[in-house]
Amino acid sequence: MNNMLNFTVGPVMSSEAVRAIGAEQVPYFRTAEFSEVMLENERLVKKFAYATKDSRAVFLTCSGSGGMETAIMNTLTKNDKALVINGGSFGQRFVELLELHEIPFTEIKMEHGKALRPENLAPYEEKGYTAFLLQKHETSTGVHYDMDLVSDFCKRNKCFLIVDTISTFLTDPFDMAALDAGIMITGSQKALACPPGVAVMVLAPSALKRIEQTKCCCQYFDLKLALKNQERGQTPWTPAVGVLRQINVRLKEIDAAGGVETEIKRTAALAQYFRSKIKDLPFEIVSESLSNAVTPLHPTTASAYEIFLKLKDEYGIWICPNGGEMKETVFRVGHIGALVTEDYDKLIEAFYDLKHKGFI
Amino acid sequence: MNNMLNFTVGPVMSSEAVRAIGAEQVPYFRTAEFSEVMLENERLVKKFAYATKDSRAVFLTCSGSGGMETAIMNTLTKNDKALVINGGSFGQRFVELLELHEIPFTEIKMEHGKALRPENLAPYEEKGYTAFLLQKHETSTGVHYDMDLVSDFCKRNKCFLIVDTISTFLTDPFDMAALDAGIMITGSQKALACPPGVAVMVLAPSALKRIEQTKCCCQYFDLKLALKNQERGQTPWTPAVGVLRQINVRLKEIDAAGGVETEIKRTAALAQYFRSKIKDLPFEIVSESLSNAVTPLHPTTASAYEIFLKLKDEYGIWICPNGGEMKETVFRVGHIGALVTEDYDKLIEAFYDLKHKGFI
Repeated sequence: MNNMLNFTVGPVMSSEAVRAIGAEQVPYFRTAEFSEVMLENERLVKKFAYATKDSRAVFLTCSGSGGMETAIMNTLTKNDKALVINGGSFGQRFVELLELHEIPFTEIKMEHGKALRPENLAPYEEKGYTAFLLQKHETSTGVHYDMDLVSDFCKRNKCFLIVDTISTFLTDPFDMAALDAGIMITGSQKALACPPGVAVMVLAPSALKRIEQTKCCCQYFDLKLALKNQERGQTPWTPAVGVLRQINVRLKEIDAAGGVETEIKRTAALAQYFRSKIKDLPFEIVSESLSNAVTPLHPTTASAYEIFLKLKDEYGIWICPNGGEMKETVFRVGHIGALVTEDYDKLIEAFYDLKHKGFI
Repeated sequence: MNNMLNFTVGPVMSSEAVRAIGAEQVPYFRTAEFSEVMLENERLVKKFAYATKDSRAVFLTCSGSGGMETAIMNTLTKNDKALVINGGSFGQRFVELLELHEIPFTEIKMEHGKALRPENLAPYEEKGYTAFLLQKHETSTGVHYDMDLVSDFCKRNKCFLIVDTISTFLTDPFDMAALDAGIMITGSQKALACPPGVAVMVLAPSALKRIEQTKCCCQYFDLKLALKNQERGQTPWTPAVGVLRQINVRLKEIDAAGGVETEIKRTAALAQYFRSKIKDLPFEIVSESLSNAVTPLHPTTASAYEIFLKLKDEYGIWICPNGGEMKETVFRVGHIGALVTEDYDKLIEAFYDLKHKGFI
């Protein structure tokens, strides 16, 4: 599995420097040296998220979904009334989590591929909603939602805003302070381009206040404990030390290369390059509002899943299959991780070869 | 931090083969290839735990403490009456978790360092207890509890037995089937000698039945979902794919070298070697009942924490400091991970150097 070209949306390919850390022994971590790494991680994540100075960041050893549930368990209660955008698998996950944790909510069900418009939110103005949850980028369908629209709604309606930026952090502009978002969540294996295992959460003062007042039903995900320990660059439980050191290297790489804007531009250029090359292939882009992170495609002449298998088994290339009802109709091509235009040339060549052979 | 000699109890040093995987790109995982890795992991962990054929194993992306909480959340309810051994930090964690999840329980508080004896359990015979929780090896104090005593009690009293084997799996004999244990828990960064990030749970049929009947309050840790996905070698959420592949390499290494008995013998020999060399040093062993995993020591002439710092900063060696009230009085020397006798020679030499200099 080691020489595959990886265009999925996670785990993605890592830089040489990140992989070099993976080859090292994992150090003991209850030390001043590891604390420094963690405090630097917090500082850089906050910087790249444009969080206010009095915001905090914590690192949990779990998947991004664990981060989504942690946000709900630590900041919402039965006294809330939440609005949630459900435009795909991850929106559906927020819905299931709100149900499980018995948070009163209303679901705004979006047709797959459709952008968010003012009329989607209009019916919920001044109806007493206290919280708003969404994927900034619904990874399963590749739809990038209009955050200004959401933020304005939340400011008018005094809604606490929880944003899953798991696949869009570092790939599309996100200004946490300007949007007045309470929580943003991302994962180590998306544009951070490290191995999976760590969820990253940035918490605005509005979130910190809610956390203080909320009893979390799960000790492992109790943000009071995580925040208390992170004050000195530590975690309550043994964390994924290796991945956290890799995140450190990667954050510093991004910082040295010009910061988050440069990284977003780099990703946007890759996405544009790929999209410009597929115009003569039998694929339709199925999202009205694209993120730079991924291009979701409907192949018009063959099964999406069969194309995924064919590329994997015969070309040494992973594209990202979809699950559930989209399995046969949609695949995705990611633009995150250590990819360059030459990698896309190989993918395009493989697509044309499949076309030439009549497979697509 | 890369050339340190590591005698802590986790993260520990990894073999060349495990680190080679760490240097590779992390593969996409919703594939038949990764499913095979996961099914093999399940098979080998069950084998090494001497689990019955109809037991199952699952792999959660979290710390061992996450595994402890998962066990409680998925198998115990308010209708249980639990007994818990509290002989140190990890026993205390079980106590806190039982409190948080509102499971009725009685705590058997053990003095630090003391072995479990029949008289500790006698008062609880035929008192209607339905569950028993303990650390087989209380890692914080280095006390290895008598599992036959506990198992006999559980069999007589029909108690569901949850065993935290986090630091003792692969270092001391453990026959899950013979003990009739319901759950065993371990972590990737102990004797599995992989980076931290994965908790491993083996679930006997008695546990599977309880899981089926229990509503888990946390989706991320819902074992119904984990078990369902693991049937096809998958996980409900993106797992720590890199660590799971490293676990695979390590389990196969152990299997090829002669299996769990050989690994236990190897560890026991290292522990004996170290213990035989420290007789003239100003250290007292503070446990009545030692595991092969670790030697807990009370330095009689200096602060335990100062010795830890000195070895770290001046000798390039990590021993394992204790926290809380034992911080100044106890440190531990681990025998897990990719260690050989020559490594202990270096440690002993450093101790003698400290003695020569009058530091200890």
